[in-house]
Amino acid sequence: MSDTPETNSLLVTARVDGLKVRSRDGDSLGQVQAFMVEKGSGRTLYAVLSLGGFLGMGKSYYPLPFELIAYDATGDDYVVTIDRRVLEGGPSWASNAPEFTQAYADRVSNYYGLSAARVDRVPLA
Amino acid sequence: MSDTPETNSLLVTARVDGLKVRSRDGDSLGQVQAFMVEKGSGRTLYAVLSLGGFLGMGKSYYPLPFELIAYDATGDDYVVTIDRRVLEGGPSWASNAPEFTQAYADRVSNYYGLSAARVDRVPLA
Repeated sequence: MSDTPETNSLLVTARVDGLKVRSRDGDSLGQVQAFMVEKGSGRTLYAVLSLGGFLGMGKSYYPLPFELIAYDATGDDYVVTIDRRVLEGGPSWASNAPEFTQAYADRVSNYYGLSAARVDRVPLA
Repeated sequence: MSDTPETNSLLVTARVDGLKVRSRDGDSLGQVQAFMVEKGSGRTLYAVLSLGGFLGMGKSYYPLPFELIAYDATGDDYVVTIDRRVLEGGPSWASNAPEFTQAYADRVSNYYGLSAARVDRVPLA
């Protein structure tokens, strides 16, 4: 669509509070810490989950393609639709958040077997 | 789609930093303070602008349907596509943020002459 180099600036970190996340089995996993929102379209492409206690480690952050969590209005929470062990083995960080570039987004999507969410440049209306 | 009463819990406030907003004339207006994101779809339905200096007042917050701001990748900022005076007369608050219920969302959309963004309940997949 454009020969302009892709940058991470097309996604913005949008911090949220109070959004709980559980596994398909109903176990509490943690919460959504942020949505990664495409600036042009306003679409959430990734959710960053804040999860604690895996393998005896402290709290860590797991980016997940947004289509892999499902909102449950009844419980007002999200369910991770993939196996918990797959999530545990996925891209994550503990203290130093990576730049959420297209390359990093590709890595996350590839890990989960999804085609990468393309961050398209939206022309000014 | 459902006879369940609508609540405000279907939108979540997602706070963002560093997103500048200018008028169609190029004047700096302030910044985006938050996106109001539909929990189920991940879509941004409204942007809350933090604007200062209108009519000698301090900083105030103006919710705006997301389709009324346009992202400009060149400047990495947003342009408000409506007349600044229309925005200045719109729904806003200074210190006490309203609950962003469907009724409030309707009020915002109606002011801008748009059909209200419906916050649909998304069934659990």
